Amino acid sequence: MKKKISKAVIARLPRYYRYLSDLMEEGIDRISSNDLARRMNVTASQIRQDLNNFGGFGQQGYGYNVQYLRGEIGKLLGLDRQKHVIIIGAGHLGQALANYANFSRRGFEVKALFDVDPAIIGKTIRSAQVYSLDYLETYLAENEVDIATLTLPRAHALEVINRLCSGGVKAIWNFAHTDLPVPENVLVENVHLSESLMELSYRMIAETEDEE
Amino acid sequence: MKKKISKAVIARLPRYYRYLSDLMEEGIDRISSNDLARRMNVTASQIRQDLNNFGGFGQQGYGYNVQYLRGEIGKLLGLDRQKHVIIIGAGHLGQALANYANFSRRGFEVKALFDVDPAIIGKTIRSAQVYSLDYLETYLAENEVDIATLTLPRAHALEVINRLCSGGVKAIWNFAHTDLPVPENVLVENVHLSESLMELSYRMIAETEDEE
Repeated sequence: MKKKISKAVIARLPRYYRYLSDLMEEGIDRISSNDLARRMNVTASQIRQDLNNFGGFGQQGYGYNVQYLRGEIGKLLGLDRQKHVIIIGAGHLGQALANYANFSRRGFEVKALFDVDPAIIGKTIRSAQVYSLDYLETYLAENEVDIATLTLPRAHALEVINRLCSGGVKAIWNFAHTDLPVPENVLVENVHLSESLMELSYRMIAETEDEE
Repeated sequence: MKKKISKAVIARLPRYYRYLSDLMEEGIDRISSNDLARRMNVTASQIRQDLNNFGGFGQQGYGYNVQYLRGEIGKLLGLDRQKHVIIIGAGHLGQALANYANFSRRGFEVKALFDVDPAIIGKTIRSAQVYSLDYLETYLAENEVDIATLTLPRAHALEVINRLCSGGVKAIWNFAHTDLPVPENVLVENVHLSESLMELSYRMIAETEDEE
């Protein structure tokens, strides 16, 4: 039985992965928690605590082996496995995501997009074809899809979510501006862009008032 | 002196705003914290606690006036003010953001985009023109820009951030896959898309292991 890891710790793992990738590119083999902490603008004790959740990875007095630690965090994040990703909604945002070279470098392979617009259906974006949304059920029956990305208006997202769940999709990366009603065994990760913009706006006002 | 509100509470405000907007569209004038809690899948006491940070907004026994509460939360989020937004990087993601009608409905007006690609410079996206990045300093001198959105590769983001800060921009909405070194008085809100995808991937693996 694995220990339950807090959401805050999990949310920090990708940032560790990013900094370790940078260190590798710079040719740095080994780093102390103090030096890593300074770079990341956090405390060394937070780093040690975070990584202790997974067994530590460090050797007292020797610091961390950059390549090893990056590999282990990568495994925790599932980056060593191929993930079959589809995108529902091939508008600007869907196309932007399909074009991200970084995703495939981390094992997230966008294999297909789906849309209702005849002007887009049939096109190829990077190596992924845009299919008609009518073809979704057939595609899900013939392919083991790991992640479905929703980049379509909220009303349509609510329609398509049932079709995805019926088709066996277990993880949704949701950009639609709504909370999705999904069965308990389906994971949803929301990216509500306008909410992030509103948070920024809140902080802008709060800062101004502090100065007054 | 205003009370410091926790980041978690602030992060929840846009979701309240979204649910209240939905209620208004459904023609619902008044709602109890219990009913709102049921809809939002949170506890009524969390709602009351959250809103008490700002003075409460409710009347004992009468519930919340939907339109009033939505208006007040909107003011907290600065949605009643026009915000001059620019986008640096007019690729797919930049264009997707410039095309979001929802943003302008909430006072976030994308007025200009900047890019280095001659094929894009001079185009108009919605009502915003794409300028050459060379024109950035002039634009910042002539316009009071509230928010600069960074949708460009990380190496370029690090170059452009100094130019934005020198030009007086105080808030950055950052999609570049890096932590930006900014002066203390400049706000940064990060949207690291691949990190959100990695979190989803982590949870997918954790779920599978739980089932085993």
